[in-house]
Amino acid sequence: MFNKVVIVGVGELGASIGRDIKNKRLAKKVIGVGRRIASLKKAKKIKAIDELFLVTDLKKAVEDADLIILATPVLKIVELGLISGRYAKKGALITDVGSTKKHIVEKLEKGLPEKVDFVGSHPMAGSEKGGPLNSQENLFKNRDCFLVRTKKTNNKALLKIKKFWEKLGSRTIEISAPRHDSITADISQMTHIVASSLVLASKGSVEYAASGFKDTTRIALADTDLWRDICITNSKDISRSISNVITVLKKFQKAISNKNEREIKKLLNKARKIRSSLVT
Amino acid sequence: MFNKVVIVGVGELGASIGRDIKNKRLAKKVIGVGRRIASLKKAKKIKAIDELFLVTDLKKAVEDADLIILATPVLKIVELGLISGRYAKKGALITDVGSTKKHIVEKLEKGLPEKVDFVGSHPMAGSEKGGPLNSQENLFKNRDCFLVRTKKTNNKALLKIKKFWEKLGSRTIEISAPRHDSITADISQMTHIVASSLVLASKGSVEYAASGFKDTTRIALADTDLWRDICITNSKDISRSISNVITVLKKFQKAISNKNEREIKKLLNKARKIRSSLVT
Repeated sequence: MFNKVVIVGVGELGASIGRDIKNKRLAKKVIGVGRRIASLKKAKKIKAIDELFLVTDLKKAVEDADLIILATPVLKIVELGLISGRYAKKGALITDVGSTKKHIVEKLEKGLPEKVDFVGSHPMAGSEKGGPLNSQENLFKNRDCFLVRTKKTNNKALLKIKKFWEKLGSRTIEISAPRHDSITADISQMTHIVASSLVLASKGSVEYAASGFKDTTRIALADTDLWRDICITNSKDISRSISNVITVLKKFQKAISNKNEREIKKLLNKARKIRSSLVT
Repeated sequence: MFNKVVIVGVGELGASIGRDIKNKRLAKKVIGVGRRIASLKKAKKIKAIDELFLVTDLKKAVEDADLIILATPVLKIVELGLISGRYAKKGALITDVGSTKKHIVEKLEKGLPEKVDFVGSHPMAGSEKGGPLNSQENLFKNRDCFLVRTKKTNNKALLKIKKFWEKLGSRTIEISAPRHDSITADISQMTHIVASSLVLASKGSVEYAASGFKDTTRIALADTDLWRDICITNSKDISRSISNVITVLKKFQKAISNKNEREIKKLLNKARKIRSSLVT
């Protein structure tokens, strides 16, 4: 499918992509680019990449690449994406795996040269663990992967990126950046904020926490740089989602304070029914 | 340890207790009492109980019991506990596994006859699944189990119940009912309310939810009768905990709206650090 693929950022997502590309023989060569030599070496050892470059050699790394995949925290995606584009060959494809899309797509569509084609992606996969050693084969299989279509999108490039994710087993969903950011604020970013808030609010009691609390708050262990970038680049939607959650919490609070059995049961049942509609 | 143990309610907790009692030979006979013959038969089939009685025959079931364990939703614990006490023999021990303790302990200490001894328990174990077929051997091993000591508590009875839970592998913690209810509002009841609120608030986006959202909200699948009773019998503490979570959510909202990188990172780091202090 490609001669040379460059993955910028060999964390959990980047390394998982590299392993699938190599297992499925989607490229002749996979290059890993990163900040730390230790992570790059780990990624090479687990056969996620064939060659490694420090980010200071990004220019050299992206030479002749057919596909460049940006898999760093959001603000770094923009910074390194712009550098990659400058040194990429004519016709190179660039995509990313960032969790917010308005910021990334806007900055890269504006800043990238005409010679390259950019399509923003967001595969809905990954854990709170991070790092190449937590990468997995087939991580993207049967997962949703959002693909952002804009007025500037090159149709051929979009089809190629779509085909790439489908080779990794993902279900692709074409979407606008604002709609993407609104949806992920509700289901992804709020999950994190709510889990972190629950932990902070239960500070004094947390030593007695059992499995339910631990499962519910596990995601609060995720990398905080990654999440700071996500919060900053999707602040309006996340703020709106927080207001929505507060509104529901206040409904629960009112019903519980009033010992309103019917209303409590109604809210619990409604949540249970919606949650039941999700597999596992 | 006992001749005859009666377990009232053979759901996930009740049946798990029965299996451990039989595996560890802590009683000569284990009687299961329940509302539905089907559940009782399932519990017998998996060897959680030796004999079964419908709750309409509770009087007959508790005759000669040395230990009666109440393992139904909270309001039923009080109702069936009072009936059990009336027909129990002199010196019988009664305990429960209810998630709120002020309500249960107050009602049972007031309503039970002098001839029996009651000690409230709360083992911090169980899943959102419920039912005897989701029971597990060694469910209580290495888990905390709260034991409520009051002015009325018989010391010998408390020691016997403590020893019982320790035989099941639990770490026992003596506590007052108000302190128990305050702690569990923070770490147990809020987990449920927050998970349910997240589901309700993300209604329109929920079809795209990935593993993080699913893990965080799994607990919202739990039995809603059980949780309605818990909410009603610990309403003040839960209401206070909801206010605490809302306060933290508003801090996040302010920091995110202002794109205050330092404050966002500070909140995320603090939550991550506290969550890291919990094993797994």
